[in-house]
Amino acid sequence: MDRAPVARSLAGALALAALLAAGCGGGPATPARTAAPEAAPPPPSAVAVDPLPSWNEGAAKAAIVGFVARVTREDGPDFVPPSERVATFDNDGTLWAEQPIYVQLAFALDRVRDLAPQHPEWRNKEPFKSALAGDPKAALAGGERGLAELLAATHVGNTTEEFDAIVRQWISTAHHPRSGRPYIEMVYQPMLELLAYLRANGFKTFIVSGGGVDFMRPWTEDVYGVPPEQVVGSRARLEYKVRDGVPVIERLAGVDLVDDKAGKPVGIQQQIGRRPIAAFGNSDGDFEMLEWTTSGPGARLGVIVHHTDGTREWAYDRGSPIGTLAHALDEAPKRGWVVVDMKRDWNTVFGFER
Amino acid sequence: MDRAPVARSLAGALALAALLAAGCGGGPATPARTAAPEAAPPPPSAVAVDPLPSWNEGAAKAAIVGFVARVTREDGPDFVPPSERVATFDNDGTLWAEQPIYVQLAFALDRVRDLAPQHPEWRNKEPFKSALAGDPKAALAGGERGLAELLAATHVGNTTEEFDAIVRQWISTAHHPRSGRPYIEMVYQPMLELLAYLRANGFKTFIVSGGGVDFMRPWTEDVYGVPPEQVVGSRARLEYKVRDGVPVIERLAGVDLVDDKAGKPVGIQQQIGRRPIAAFGNSDGDFEMLEWTTSGPGARLGVIVHHTDGTREWAYDRGSPIGTLAHALDEAPKRGWVVVDMKRDWNTVFGFER
Repeated sequence: MDRAPVARSLAGALALAALLAAGCGGGPATPARTAAPEAAPPPPSAVAVDPLPSWNEGAAKAAIVGFVARVTREDGPDFVPPSERVATFDNDGTLWAEQPIYVQLAFALDRVRDLAPQHPEWRNKEPFKSALAGDPKAALAGGERGLAELLAATHVGNTTEEFDAIVRQWISTAHHPRSGRPYIEMVYQPMLELLAYLRANGFKTFIVSGGGVDFMRPWTEDVYGVPPEQVVGSRARLEYKVRDGVPVIERLAGVDLVDDKAGKPVGIQQQIGRRPIAAFGNSDGDFEMLEWTTSGPGARLGVIVHHTDGTREWAYDRGSPIGTLAHALDEAPKRGWVVVDMKRDWNTVFGFER
Repeated sequence: MDRAPVARSLAGALALAALLAAGCGGGPATPARTAAPEAAPPPPSAVAVDPLPSWNEGAAKAAIVGFVARVTREDGPDFVPPSERVATFDNDGTLWAEQPIYVQLAFALDRVRDLAPQHPEWRNKEPFKSALAGDPKAALAGGERGLAELLAATHVGNTTEEFDAIVRQWISTAHHPRSGRPYIEMVYQPMLELLAYLRANGFKTFIVSGGGVDFMRPWTEDVYGVPPEQVVGSRARLEYKVRDGVPVIERLAGVDLVDDKAGKPVGIQQQIGRRPIAAFGNSDGDFEMLEWTTSGPGARLGVIVHHTDGTREWAYDRGSPIGTLAHALDEAPKRGWVVVDMKRDWNTVFGFER
């Protein structure tokens, strides 16, 4: 069977609540690495300390540092007041690894296993049967419909607080299948430095991801220093009700926002209410966010993280069903977007390498 | 004709994009009063300066100050870390006056006048005919359907940036029909002090209003010190597109969220992603927000502003189609919610009185 078209339609559907195929582990809990939270910009230091030590000197680093210098220079022509320094970051493939499968899909597959005892009918029903047999590729062979079934069975029908607890429990115990590290250690060290550097320069940093917002919020503050109210993502329909005397918010089966492609500027407008001046992505799903950000007046920064390091991370772009990067890569030069070459521009990819 | 049922159904519909009936003015621009923006909490002062000088001493002020002291005392049993100090405020009737009509309705009626030259058909068509004749009550006699027509004609079919400019222009020139003051001066001085006081104690302050989010965001930062990304409101459906080579976000005719009643906890979850620990409202439209806020674990604060001052402001509650307050007032004692008696608890209502 030709799996490529299936994988591609999946990639589209997954943008939905964020996903794709293979195994994943479980193991002892490891505490999340913490990042500096939002803070008022400190006074400029007299000592020049490189705020981006994991970035090699080169065009990408120079473009980022130059942009920040321009918008923060109070007497300069490109000065932007701190309240308008909004920077948005895609998550999967931009802030943390998305290979060999989106982390949220690993979560969904693990959750099928956890819920299986209450669903004896899954033993003979796809996509659950294959998921339980440890064959996620077969589980996803049903395309969008199978995926939707997986998501519905594992992501909704609970309250926001119940789901929060489920995600916290999983993320503190699950491990990446290749590195054996907790998923929260699969974040890119250069991007953690960049988040902190922008915040130190008065920026407010937001995540704008195709992934599920309720899957990210439980851990983004600890891991990235980005609080829940600064996370924009795809979301389930919600309903407030008082259940047996207890107020709850229920997560329903419908999708309220697909925060991907043209959905990203919409999510940004709904939740942030102003156009970012800097945006960071890695795939064609981020094209519209970068287009919207960089077509505004004044100084603008659009950055694409290009996965070029097959040794320390993964090398993929046009042909990959996960994180497809073609149109945005073609457009980058004419739009003045910075393309970060992971292999060349980053001296460290993951913090655990050091 | 009995106008009460019409007014009541309107009050429901208006929660939608926020509205109700009578005249409104126009005049010279006046600069917005500014409020202190979000900032890191300053070190506790050795000198005791009353942070709430417009509040008379009494049970309401004591309850608010006592709550803040409890959640900020690091070694106390009710301590809440700053990142979780989320406070939400209704807008109409809680932060600024909503009589004799919701400000956003005054905006809609003025906009009918502005747009009339392009719509000769409005001269013979309700609700526009009555709106143009200066008779807003007749204009709204058509109930929800007429109101929906008014909103559709005046609020959508433009881009987010066009609408932002329209609101900025209007709010800087329109005047309140009774005080003759710019609408942005119809904000409550005690509530401005409360917003600043909470922020000085590490709270993040949000507006959560039934009013249109795009109607509020252009001025909330100047007037309340609340930036656009901390404003939750009712919203139109949005669509991102590239129009004649220019990326825009279009405001469509459908409603994406009615941020009122049970819609408020949903809006809070969508945009803030955590349950507030303090909530402030003035009507039954705020009931669910207060219920959701105060039913969480730990120290919680629910506050209702009760309009009791017919001299300095307006006196209304159960019988009023605007800002109906009945159920929430009845429930306040059993739920431990603080009821602010405007007449008794506030020594100043509007800053311009002084």
